Amino acid sequence: MMQRHPVNDTRFIDGMMSIRATRSIGLVALLLVVTPVLGDDAASLSSWNDTASKRAIVEFVARVTTEGGAEFVPPEERIAVFDNDGTLWCEQPMYFQLLFALDRVHALADQQPEWQDQQPFAAVLANDREKLAALGHADLGAIMAATHAGMTTDEFDAIVREWFQTARHPIYDRPYTELVYQPMLELLDYLRAHGFQTYIVSGGGVDFIRSFADEVYGIPPEQVIGSSGLTHFELRDGVPVLIKTAEIGSIDDGPGKPANIELHIGRRPLMAFGNSDGDLQMLQWTTAGEGPRFGLIVHHTDAEREFAYDRESHIGKLDAALDEAATRGWTVVDMQADWGTVFSEESN
Amino acid sequence: MMQRHPVNDTRFIDGMMSIRATRSIGLVALLLVVTPVLGDDAASLSSWNDTASKRAIVEFVARVTTEGGAEFVPPEERIAVFDNDGTLWCEQPMYFQLLFALDRVHALADQQPEWQDQQPFAAVLANDREKLAALGHADLGAIMAATHAGMTTDEFDAIVREWFQTARHPIYDRPYTELVYQPMLELLDYLRAHGFQTYIVSGGGVDFIRSFADEVYGIPPEQVIGSSGLTHFELRDGVPVLIKTAEIGSIDDGPGKPANIELHIGRRPLMAFGNSDGDLQMLQWTTAGEGPRFGLIVHHTDAEREFAYDRESHIGKLDAALDEAATRGWTVVDMQADWGTVFSEESN
Repeated sequence: MMQRHPVNDTRFIDGMMSIRATRSIGLVALLLVVTPVLGDDAASLSSWNDTASKRAIVEFVARVTTEGGAEFVPPEERIAVFDNDGTLWCEQPMYFQLLFALDRVHALADQQPEWQDQQPFAAVLANDREKLAALGHADLGAIMAATHAGMTTDEFDAIVREWFQTARHPIYDRPYTELVYQPMLELLDYLRAHGFQTYIVSGGGVDFIRSFADEVYGIPPEQVIGSSGLTHFELRDGVPVLIKTAEIGSIDDGPGKPANIELHIGRRPLMAFGNSDGDLQMLQWTTAGEGPRFGLIVHHTDAEREFAYDRESHIGKLDAALDEAATRGWTVVDMQADWGTVFSEESN
Repeated sequence: MMQRHPVNDTRFIDGMMSIRATRSIGLVALLLVVTPVLGDDAASLSSWNDTASKRAIVEFVARVTTEGGAEFVPPEERIAVFDNDGTLWCEQPMYFQLLFALDRVHALADQQPEWQDQQPFAAVLANDREKLAALGHADLGAIMAATHAGMTTDEFDAIVREWFQTARHPIYDRPYTELVYQPMLELLDYLRAHGFQTYIVSGGGVDFIRSFADEVYGIPPEQVIGSSGLTHFELRDGVPVLIKTAEIGSIDDGPGKPANIELHIGRRPLMAFGNSDGDLQMLQWTTAGEGPRFGLIVHHTDAEREFAYDRESHIGKLDAALDEAATRGWTVVDMQADWGTVFSEESN
């Protein structure tokens, strides 16, 4: 049974504090690979090298979109689902939504003087790296509750949008919305050009993601599925508002992903894209459907241009899903070999 | 705070057993009103009489879809939300989903011999009207759990589809899917022709509604929002399945409607259509948005062609929302005066 979790169950921020140090900021290693493309149809996937991964995508899309073909799938059934953290954008050194939460603790400190002496907030305010690295689930849950609840949905949306306008990634020193993967942006466009609906199915908060998904990914709010808290409807001076509460509604991770796909979409996807064991069940569910199905895992193999991590990583652990990719025939993207570019405007 | 409810909280089937006897099957009273329409644009709304309700709809749609107009709304923001029971189809003498559940108790009785001596199942199997009318929430919850949980989502879908193929309404003696309101079918088409996305936001079960909504209403699964139980993901001999559990995930009624609209759509609708106090908060939320908004209530005033009920009804009670319609400027459809036809193919 899909279980309910109190707010201090922080599987979705599990391990956020465990910063891996394997990365070198090797932007000098930019590979400008001019690839011989697979035909006009695939020309828009220009950041993908001409390797097996790109070919697998293009060949699958051709199979299901060729009218009169044996495996033709009508447009309304062309559903593609994408994990977000680590699949569409970077998830290191910790999930960006937790970095947002930590920034919010600083921003709210004046209104909460008691935080100076109260953990985990005192550690955040003191930038105490040792204590921060040792924070447990309950601590992280308290930080999430203090920064993601107690305001209206409109107020939260405005806070997140302003943060994205001003905040910068601690390592790349770029706006977070620039740390999306250029090959995946091209893939989203490519699939939509072939009649697919592209959904996000993320362990991150649905409203956090919606604040930038339309502009950055071209994915409208109704095609974003994520973790969510319950909201409370009330009239304030006759004006209806929805208040974000600290009670968790859904953890959209692991087995929660197929459950939420069924709840929100009500169709089994044709294609699924992930990067970690949190996407395993989504990939299983998608590719077990009748007829042609496609599963893909983004394997972070590029310590020079991004990060290299998999089986032992605390964030974005990829272990069981990597084994299963082989037995179930999923495509595994080797970021270093398959992507000519990682981030857009990489020379910035 | 939106609360969690155990399965025996059956607000969504509240009062289903209270059959009103006010209806006379007056199909003879068919009014073939040939209306002077409001222009070519409204010609497709041919089952609507040329009254203020139709004019309000057509004028609103013109305001928000006229390019260059001061109140023009781009297509992606043209969201229209519809309650289902009593708004798109009939909800008398009880919600059709409860009639399905009662039929399922009969169908499952051979596999559950203990039900012969176990309430509330014994009362259902004996067609004991007195006992059925006295069933409480816990009894109805037990019936819902026994008929809507413990199978995979695919199995449930097949059961519901087969039921719709064979079951007939106890009073009209017609398939349930014929008891949709012809004027509302035309309205759905009319809005979609003007670039609207049409969503169902129903207290009924999301998977029950999806089994017919695409074919009958032209509404695809991803645009159906409803009450839902939690599902449990598991592998059966390596094949992933989602098992329907008896644990309630969301009650999509009253304040649950705006909460689910925010969760699933993430945009405030432009238009909302309901018929009962269960739709009050959805109408408040929708029409409190900035710019032009439209709220409409279907008032069941036609005892000859359908049913007449409002403030005192146990099913589809319309009381607070009717008062509020006046103060908030919502359109109230008088079914008797405003609709030239109620059901499609009414002569059947």
